[in-house]
Amino acid sequence: MSKQRVLTGITTTGTPHLGNYVGAIRPAIQASQNEDNLSFFFLADFHALIKCTDPKQLHQSTKEIAATWLASGLDPDRVIFYRQSDIPEIPELCWLLTCMTGKGLMNRAHAYKAAVALNEDAGEDPDFGVNMGLYSYPILMAADILMFNANKVPVGKDQIQHVEMARDIAGRFNHHFGDKFVLPEAVVDDNVAVLSGLDGRKMSKSYGNTIPLFLPEKQLQKHINKIKTNLLEPGEPKDPETSTVFEIWRAFATPEQTESMRQAFADGIAWGEAKKQLFELINGQLSDSREQYNALMSDGETIEKILLEGADRARGYASRLLEKLRKAVGIRKIV
Amino acid sequence: MSKQRVLTGITTTGTPHLGNYVGAIRPAIQASQNEDNLSFFFLADFHALIKCTDPKQLHQSTKEIAATWLASGLDPDRVIFYRQSDIPEIPELCWLLTCMTGKGLMNRAHAYKAAVALNEDAGEDPDFGVNMGLYSYPILMAADILMFNANKVPVGKDQIQHVEMARDIAGRFNHHFGDKFVLPEAVVDDNVAVLSGLDGRKMSKSYGNTIPLFLPEKQLQKHINKIKTNLLEPGEPKDPETSTVFEIWRAFATPEQTESMRQAFADGIAWGEAKKQLFELINGQLSDSREQYNALMSDGETIEKILLEGADRARGYASRLLEKLRKAVGIRKIV
Repeated sequence: MSKQRVLTGITTTGTPHLGNYVGAIRPAIQASQNEDNLSFFFLADFHALIKCTDPKQLHQSTKEIAATWLASGLDPDRVIFYRQSDIPEIPELCWLLTCMTGKGLMNRAHAYKAAVALNEDAGEDPDFGVNMGLYSYPILMAADILMFNANKVPVGKDQIQHVEMARDIAGRFNHHFGDKFVLPEAVVDDNVAVLSGLDGRKMSKSYGNTIPLFLPEKQLQKHINKIKTNLLEPGEPKDPETSTVFEIWRAFATPEQTESMRQAFADGIAWGEAKKQLFELINGQLSDSREQYNALMSDGETIEKILLEGADRARGYASRLLEKLRKAVGIRKIV
Repeated sequence: MSKQRVLTGITTTGTPHLGNYVGAIRPAIQASQNEDNLSFFFLADFHALIKCTDPKQLHQSTKEIAATWLASGLDPDRVIFYRQSDIPEIPELCWLLTCMTGKGLMNRAHAYKAAVALNEDAGEDPDFGVNMGLYSYPILMAADILMFNANKVPVGKDQIQHVEMARDIAGRFNHHFGDKFVLPEAVVDDNVAVLSGLDGRKMSKSYGNTIPLFLPEKQLQKHINKIKTNLLEPGEPKDPETSTVFEIWRAFATPEQTESMRQAFADGIAWGEAKKQLFELINGQLSDSREQYNALMSDGETIEKILLEGADRARGYASRLLEKLRKAVGIRKIV
């Protein structure tokens, strides 16, 4: 049986944090080590343009995110790791698919509907401040997926709809022009941990409550010390289920370590001590990767070289498929 | 002073007819002979995909239209003549511009509003049957224009709005990322003739009333004989201003020939005789081009070669500008 193609896109905005690592980076890299899979990972810089008009931030974030994935164990010889903007076949496919997409389908996209609802609540025009990038984004995402005939697309629950739209669009193309596309499936892993941030809400850049993944050691310690706890004194038993410290511990610990910390909570471990142990656990697991991350960040040329090699391999797939699609729609040599 | 860049796109659907020739092909080729202009002509096959899902028709029409322009005097050494789909920079620019386009702007496009109005009259959902290609088409057109920093875009009145949208989008990009784009201007030539078709309505493929441009001689004569006239007998004076025969005559004749035909109408020329003279006039002007057209149609490789050479030259401009745009938005080498 041929390998299952698994595709993962990472939007190049922001600096990766512990929540991204536990919720996305680590499981995706683990899945890519499965012999049955052929994994495609890409830096979604065309998507980043929808919200980011700061060129320095876009560029810096692309570098940081590439370095993060490589330092976290992504093996560029084993997977296909590329920058979206290095694949000119993708925006071209995006246009072919645009002509196969009903406007009604885009009207139903959650992200667009949420923007409209906000505008309506504020008494504005429904489309106030909505740009066409936001509105058409599911078509670009369909192009990302269909370009490589991905079978599986691991996503969070909020992205299931977009994979379904890619299926719809692929189906319409297949109907008009013959079976060219595999219909992709969304894969949602309910076991993936979602971390809380410093203030106890979900860890998210938009809340400003994150612990960046590759902070220098001292800064990591400082951040961990800032995690919100309750006022229970040393010696008083503590509830692990409501504690962000415990939640993050569990995301990095072995089952045995988790049980032993659960016991320590029952025994009234001091918050300071629990945080110290948490720092040591995380720091121990991340220090090698951090070193590699820092080495990559001061050697951008190596990152660039890896991305260009990945783009070459990705274009091998993309250009062959696009050639077939062009022929199918009638774009071909005049003879 | 540097040359004015003039850009003309031709959608690759349908077979060119006398109305296209008189209203678009002939004046555009004349304008391209002006030393002050650098003219870009392109076959808009990405646009054709919006409405055409028949690959044979798209391909055949691309060939016929390329052959028509070449046979009509377009000089591919003097102008830049290319097929849109040979320029991968265009769909990429289209995405960059998509992120700079307010959805509200697209909502105001005439073609989209017309489709909504039809749906509403029929009691349908406003977006029933509307595809995203139709809706986003002004963004692709903006990419066509801005890719070459065209100064002037000769258009019919119905297309003025799209050029204005290209200006809006360019202005927004310039605002965010520095002045990268020239703001293009629509040019409308009120002197260009609009021809009526066989049935007296505007000559248009959608009415099925056209006289194809390069019909074989006998067929051309047959078509001209079918032009609708009134029942006035030979010898009875005829009104040139309400006659399609006279209208087409004037579009091909010198002023002297036009005056002499006006006199012949006053003198009661028979419809059969007027049509015979009209056939001879048109046939005399088109026979060399027709011969060239037929030669090109049976030598597709020459057309292909000309288009690929044109694409090479066009990409010289496009790739340089796109490189600047990518840098401006933050897509650049990691160092």
